[in-house]
Amino acid sequence: MTDAAHPFDLAVRLAAAGEGVWAGRTHPAYGNMVGPFGGVIAATLLNAALSHPLRLGDPLALTVNYAAPVADGDFRITAAPARTNRSTQHWTLALTQGDEAMITATAVFAQRRETWTATEAGFPQVPGWQTLARAAPVPAAAWTGRYSLRFAHGGLDLAPDAQGTDSTTLVWAQDDPPRPLDFLSLAAICDVFYPRIFIRRPVFVPAGTVSMTIYFHADAARLAAQGEAPVLGAARASHFGKGYHDQMAEIWSRDGLLLATSHQVVYFKE
Amino acid sequence: MTDAAHPFDLAVRLAAAGEGVWAGRTHPAYGNMVGPFGGVIAATLLNAALSHPLRLGDPLALTVNYAAPVADGDFRITAAPARTNRSTQHWTLALTQGDEAMITATAVFAQRRETWTATEAGFPQVPGWQTLARAAPVPAAAWTGRYSLRFAHGGLDLAPDAQGTDSTTLVWAQDDPPRPLDFLSLAAICDVFYPRIFIRRPVFVPAGTVSMTIYFHADAARLAAQGEAPVLGAARASHFGKGYHDQMAEIWSRDGLLLATSHQVVYFKE
Repeated sequence: MTDAAHPFDLAVRLAAAGEGVWAGRTHPAYGNMVGPFGGVIAATLLNAALSHPLRLGDPLALTVNYAAPVADGDFRITAAPARTNRSTQHWTLALTQGDEAMITATAVFAQRRETWTATEAGFPQVPGWQTLARAAPVPAAAWTGRYSLRFAHGGLDLAPDAQGTDSTTLVWAQDDPPRPLDFLSLAAICDVFYPRIFIRRPVFVPAGTVSMTIYFHADAARLAAQGEAPVLGAARASHFGKGYHDQMAEIWSRDGLLLATSHQVVYFKE
Repeated sequence: MTDAAHPFDLAVRLAAAGEGVWAGRTHPAYGNMVGPFGGVIAATLLNAALSHPLRLGDPLALTVNYAAPVADGDFRITAAPARTNRSTQHWTLALTQGDEAMITATAVFAQRRETWTATEAGFPQVPGWQTLARAAPVPAAAWTGRYSLRFAHGGLDLAPDAQGTDSTTLVWAQDDPPRPLDFLSLAAICDVFYPRIFIRRPVFVPAGTVSMTIYFHADAARLAAQGEAPVLGAARASHFGKGYHDQMAEIWSRDGLLLATSHQVVYFKE
């Protein structure tokens, strides 16, 4: 992979198509059961703001609303800085296909300075990633082959006797092939967790993310320092009911730095 | 309060000002140290979508980005349905003053149906609200007088010797005067928690919410069933650093139903 672009970079690639407008195309390597993997869609929207000539600072917050299933093929992204302050910048983003809005999003960028720091969340105690077996990809979801996922707890096991009372997943995740961590790949990794409903009720039901928010706790330099090392993801739900459940997730560096926290609300049928 | 409108209803009140445009005005009863209380701003944006003739279903998700401090006085809100599906609807929202974007926001509405249900988050064990004293309002922040806040843990105590290692707050919250719970008041209550940095480092530093996301776990009927009863809020941070910290919060009914979960990223100086 030294001479050719990484498939992730091909998937999030955008071509300028006017002021604040970018053209992109879904990549089959990151296909999901229907349309593309939502994590790569989130990363591609973030890439539009990151690529904008007026962009200031590093991503701090990203909210992506999955309004309709993106179809495989071409799309456009619009990115407009709604407000630029001295140290923060607020973006309004949308992904369209034809005349239809498929995704709406907002992002906040910030120039980060050193301040007092503390981490309250606890770094999960799990076996090292080298000691765990890589989970087999899900054949119907190509993107699952683009990540090495090594579950320490709460893997996908759609066996009727697997039902439990805890939706927690702990998983080491790494791009396949390995790729240096950056804001784009971190945004995508925030969405590698299967819908929590599959962990609690191990039967397949239609389910999908409706909205995802990511808070980035690391700046560009800290992410660059991770290199290609796997990151540790922790996810759980707090409530399931009336067709939707939430999910909260943490993404940790191998040595215990909290890189991002993420939240989703997920549709599920029945 | 039987003959006059509740101050909260006055604060979130909007007048139609064109297709998808509403005019509002900040209310001094919900003033903050600078400008209005962010929770009421969030509720007012939600009110624009709720009031729209094309609105479908109940609020499911709301993200509000505080791009600039709203000035006391008049404002406009634009609310446009970016996408309407069979059971979900995606909104793009903005609050402007003059020509300036002060707030950007998105909302997802959904028609909720009965499904499998489970709550994984634990209902906090705290003394009943009647047994706790109401905290004194903060004189410089009028909105703190519009809520009865009874802290079971982690109240605001800017004493130098109060420093701890846990930012958790557990607090009973109720509108003052009491008001039946609805989506608007619940959205505002999601923001009644003081910035977690004040709990961890009990000195006053400039701090403010940059972005807040709310997931609603109850439908309109369940909220209506709460009446005017206090709700229990639980909030904590997972990470502080480089000028920002996150906050995750749960809002529980008195009898242990999880009504909403909420997340913020908060700016702090030093």
